[in-house]
Amino acid sequence: MTYATGNLVIVGLGLIGGSLAGALRASGFSQRFIGYGHREPSLQRGVELGVIDEFTLDLDEAVERADILVICTPTLTAVRMLEQILPRLSGRSGGPVVTDVASVKGSLRDAAIALAGAMPPQLVLGHPIAGSEHSGVDASSADLFVNHRVILTPVAGNDPAAVELMRSMWVSAGADVVDMSVEQHDAVLAATSHLPHLLAYTLVDALSSSDASDDIFRCAAGGFRDFTRIASSDPVMWRDIAIANKTALLEAIDLFSEHLNRMRTAVHDANADELLNTFTRAKRARDEFAALLAQRSGRKTP
Amino acid sequence: MTYATGNLVIVGLGLIGGSLAGALRASGFSQRFIGYGHREPSLQRGVELGVIDEFTLDLDEAVERADILVICTPTLTAVRMLEQILPRLSGRSGGPVVTDVASVKGSLRDAAIALAGAMPPQLVLGHPIAGSEHSGVDASSADLFVNHRVILTPVAGNDPAAVELMRSMWVSAGADVVDMSVEQHDAVLAATSHLPHLLAYTLVDALSSSDASDDIFRCAAGGFRDFTRIASSDPVMWRDIAIANKTALLEAIDLFSEHLNRMRTAVHDANADELLNTFTRAKRARDEFAALLAQRSGRKTP
Repeated sequence: MTYATGNLVIVGLGLIGGSLAGALRASGFSQRFIGYGHREPSLQRGVELGVIDEFTLDLDEAVERADILVICTPTLTAVRMLEQILPRLSGRSGGPVVTDVASVKGSLRDAAIALAGAMPPQLVLGHPIAGSEHSGVDASSADLFVNHRVILTPVAGNDPAAVELMRSMWVSAGADVVDMSVEQHDAVLAATSHLPHLLAYTLVDALSSSDASDDIFRCAAGGFRDFTRIASSDPVMWRDIAIANKTALLEAIDLFSEHLNRMRTAVHDANADELLNTFTRAKRARDEFAALLAQRSGRKTP
Repeated sequence: MTYATGNLVIVGLGLIGGSLAGALRASGFSQRFIGYGHREPSLQRGVELGVIDEFTLDLDEAVERADILVICTPTLTAVRMLEQILPRLSGRSGGPVVTDVASVKGSLRDAAIALAGAMPPQLVLGHPIAGSEHSGVDASSADLFVNHRVILTPVAGNDPAAVELMRSMWVSAGADVVDMSVEQHDAVLAATSHLPHLLAYTLVDALSSSDASDDIFRCAAGGFRDFTRIASSDPVMWRDIAIANKTALLEAIDLFSEHLNRMRTAVHDANADELLNTFTRAKRARDEFAALLAQRSGRKTP
């Protein structure tokens, strides 16, 4: 078997890191998979599951041996990992290509530039749009990225070969790779993910603070369950994302608030045309999106 | 077999009316099921499906023969049906008990009082919290109401026997019956259903109006699909509900906006504690609600 690369190091072996290692092992992309982290039990579990071949608790060793190093920690931890990894790369020739999977790209790029003075050529930021309500290496799955988007945000300072290696890595894991600017990525994710999470958390908190909260939750049904499902997400992760993507999230909140105020006026004025036109436009856009998503994923439920 | 009542008339034979007739036939609640409406094909289809025994296109006949008359049309149509049905009841003794299934109760109560001078003793308003993304009598199911809530909103002027008959009707269909005041019902439904629909429509419309809408919908995933599912609902039905429940909906919008503004400030100030506390409170409330709903419905997916 010919491998595209030798050693692939996963920093933070959870759902995403474990799934990526599993997918790349199955496709024969890398020869050897090495886990790095602080928590020995989950790394040991990764070896037992056959997701990684071995692990180390020594970052020097992890960086030294890596051909590719994938930071699979949450957003703010990824910044702290960069702070430790980038100094270990400087001055080395032929060092590893480094990438990440965090939900916000601007904060990582800014941290890298602040640390290194400029974007390191071999640091290619990326973000797989995939996940699960479960977490941890035990929940990992080699087909987690199949038919899912991965957004790469290459910058002018990047080594083109490093960018292409990252593209082929994600394609090898079954993903559809899309390139965007850092700003475009953060705006798109603010709109499709960060704002909806904030709205769901806000709605549930607003209702649970109301005098009628017992009646409210007693009488809510399936539509409410679906609408608020993302309010059951990990609060620490979403606090970090909200702070890391502050600028784009504020813009998304303001766009939404402006439209909500318009709808409030339409309700207040019992403006039947405005309400019907807006709901009809939204239904059309949502139906098109659902059809697109179903087509992409090969699933039938919209 | 001993039936609780003789003739039950369904006004508007769609998903809800068809399901109610099917459930009450299965439980032996009424002896005979009669459909009334304007659209002969769907009434004919109801007979073919065995949901109703017969139908009439003549409202005088429908009211004349009914022991119970259930208005199963959408909110604003229900008001127009009341306008036609109530004059046909006046002066008759032993007329039918009349109820409805609309999502807003205040607008119907006010219409009834405006028409009749006071709430007719045999008009008992109700609302089953059940539905489906499908509609029409072909989608009806005799177990649609099993383990679902039905809210009855009896008022002081109601005949207690009529209220008890409606309670036993819904219990016979498998539902859990809860009593509320009209105002309480409309506030609870605004919070759990009408506001979430408005927010989902508003979000999808705001995003589809943005310059980046192609990228946005191209990169949205499962969380966004769930969050926006209710934006695929029928625009006419939701326009009518927004107008009929204007007062309670405006209050719910204002409560939500106040909380959203607070969250905007927390994001703007990168107030990690405020964000984490709110997300944690919301997650706890949402997890409790999901557990409650799963327990009630006997389903496992939260």
